[in-house]
Amino acid sequence: MVVGPPCKVLLFSEGDMIKRAPTPGGVAAAADRIAGLVIHTPLLPFTWRGQTIWVKAECLQTGGAFKLRGATNRLLQLTPEERRCGVVAFSSGNHAQGVAIAAQRLGIAATIIMPSDAPSVKKDGTRAAGARVVEYDRATGDREAIGAQLVAESGATLVPPFDDPHIIEGQGSVGVEIANQMVELAGGRPQLVILPCGGGGLAAGTTLALPDADIVVVEPEGWDDMGHSIARGEPVPVADPFAPTLCDALQTRQVSPLTLQVVRDRHARALAVSDAEVSAAVAFAARKLRLVVEPGGAAALAALLAGKIGMLPERTVIVLSGGNVDPLLYAEIIRSHAAEVIE
Amino acid sequence: MVVGPPCKVLLFSEGDMIKRAPTPGGVAAAADRIAGLVIHTPLLPFTWRGQTIWVKAECLQTGGAFKLRGATNRLLQLTPEERRCGVVAFSSGNHAQGVAIAAQRLGIAATIIMPSDAPSVKKDGTRAAGARVVEYDRATGDREAIGAQLVAESGATLVPPFDDPHIIEGQGSVGVEIANQMVELAGGRPQLVILPCGGGGLAAGTTLALPDADIVVVEPEGWDDMGHSIARGEPVPVADPFAPTLCDALQTRQVSPLTLQVVRDRHARALAVSDAEVSAAVAFAARKLRLVVEPGGAAALAALLAGKIGMLPERTVIVLSGGNVDPLLYAEIIRSHAAEVIE
Repeated sequence: MVVGPPCKVLLFSEGDMIKRAPTPGGVAAAADRIAGLVIHTPLLPFTWRGQTIWVKAECLQTGGAFKLRGATNRLLQLTPEERRCGVVAFSSGNHAQGVAIAAQRLGIAATIIMPSDAPSVKKDGTRAAGARVVEYDRATGDREAIGAQLVAESGATLVPPFDDPHIIEGQGSVGVEIANQMVELAGGRPQLVILPCGGGGLAAGTTLALPDADIVVVEPEGWDDMGHSIARGEPVPVADPFAPTLCDALQTRQVSPLTLQVVRDRHARALAVSDAEVSAAVAFAARKLRLVVEPGGAAALAALLAGKIGMLPERTVIVLSGGNVDPLLYAEIIRSHAAEVIE
Repeated sequence: MVVGPPCKVLLFSEGDMIKRAPTPGGVAAAADRIAGLVIHTPLLPFTWRGQTIWVKAECLQTGGAFKLRGATNRLLQLTPEERRCGVVAFSSGNHAQGVAIAAQRLGIAATIIMPSDAPSVKKDGTRAAGARVVEYDRATGDREAIGAQLVAESGATLVPPFDDPHIIEGQGSVGVEIANQMVELAGGRPQLVILPCGGGGLAAGTTLALPDADIVVVEPEGWDDMGHSIARGEPVPVADPFAPTLCDALQTRQVSPLTLQVVRDRHARALAVSDAEVSAAVAFAARKLRLVVEPGGAAALAALLAGKIGMLPERTVIVLSGGNVDPLLYAEIIRSHAAEVIE
């Protein structure tokens, strides 16, 4: 680590106390800022029930999920002083890897707080990117308290997974790319975009990037707090924070006011999918799209395949948001669907 | 089918008797001709032993393999009369699907001769594209004779899997895209390209497209006839046409003089990989690249991971040529490598 003056400990920066809302201009600026540091993932067509559907294969992003985008955008805006003092993040996995990779590239020390039951593939990936991993028990531990303590000890900057305008704007670069690719490949901007939704960072950023598209967000059953929050008009926590789901990437207890505001203003629809529907979508993605998609990353595809979307306009996009799946679980999903004919 | 005069039966067209050699100009023309009918598959970076390596993810092509390219290029050059009389192809799978999809799009009837032990996923995909599938026993049947009979009965045009300049030139569009993508993403043309090799159509076409790159072709052990043919200077059949291999896509008994000439003129190196090496590469592709790659499609990656390539220049490309793998076999490969740490 670079030698310098002691790191100042600011538990709450001004920006944390009154967070500004993410904006379309912020998304455009983020897309430009990170363009050379993320993969412009492909937009790939497939035929389903006679219609062409497009998938944005964000599982092919470095680190296996869109999370590198927001993390890179946030870290690029740290001051030299903040960079020197390192960053802290808490995450069940994909945000962890995103922050770890972005930090490694920029020469910033990263500490990631992860639940001990996170998939090994995500913990290993985070360590492989050079980050220090601090594990906690999801049932008894308080990741916010651990994070606050680490920040208090080190003066590091906390990089939240979605409750931050820079993070949301960075994730929105997915939408900027979708628009450009769709115009190039299909002659027009996307009309409907269907996305997996955890805390809503990807959903909100993409919504800001695509002012002329209908948005559908898809959550796992039991973790459909964005749906309830849209209906209620304020963030509503999940009823049971221990509800089982295959979609570890989408297990957020409560969305952010920042993300909720954006998707609610757009009148986004919210849907929920079952583990069985998600499992079928993971198998479909492997066999029909030749993409490894994790359960949470396949939630939007699951809603499509389950017939939950309804009328599909000509230019419909499904975001496949991640591909970090435990290999044994993945093998079992592929095996259990092997006898099915996938059209 | 369109009504018209009876189809003329030409067992051997002039082009078949004295085949012209494929050319760099032919590859460039093919790339332009088929540009709107194939996916420009992504060139994706990954880090291996500290170095950036690029994969051309042709498993993401429509039909799950590069074969659509050559088939589309060939079928686009049929006369209206030839189109009306249909096409016949023999293939263990990926060429079958390529021809079937290209034919369906162009409104041409297709009959595909496939070994009865071809993966169901490939037979199903061929039928799903509207082709008629004729099965034969790989041990006792003679696919060339069945093909000749079908041509004699119907006047259809035979579309060979690799022994045809139009097919080779169409496959070469992979190389044209690699060059363009590499310049855009890495600031220079590829220096080394490593490809799976069956009959050599992809290898020869790509070689013609990239006059300034070193070429390495990779075959399964026991099916390394390109290697023996390069050494001998003429096509040498495989010693045991029933040698077991996971790489059904690369089981060709003998390369074509057309493909051999091109790779030999370039002093391409040929390597062979074992089933164990291929299996490890399939698992690596799933976990590190989030791509579903079939065993044959992973042969070049297998050679890299097994340390068989030697010095790697700055701009090294691995072609992942296909992703149509039997789901049970795939699940077993993923499961058997689940405990390994993949860096």
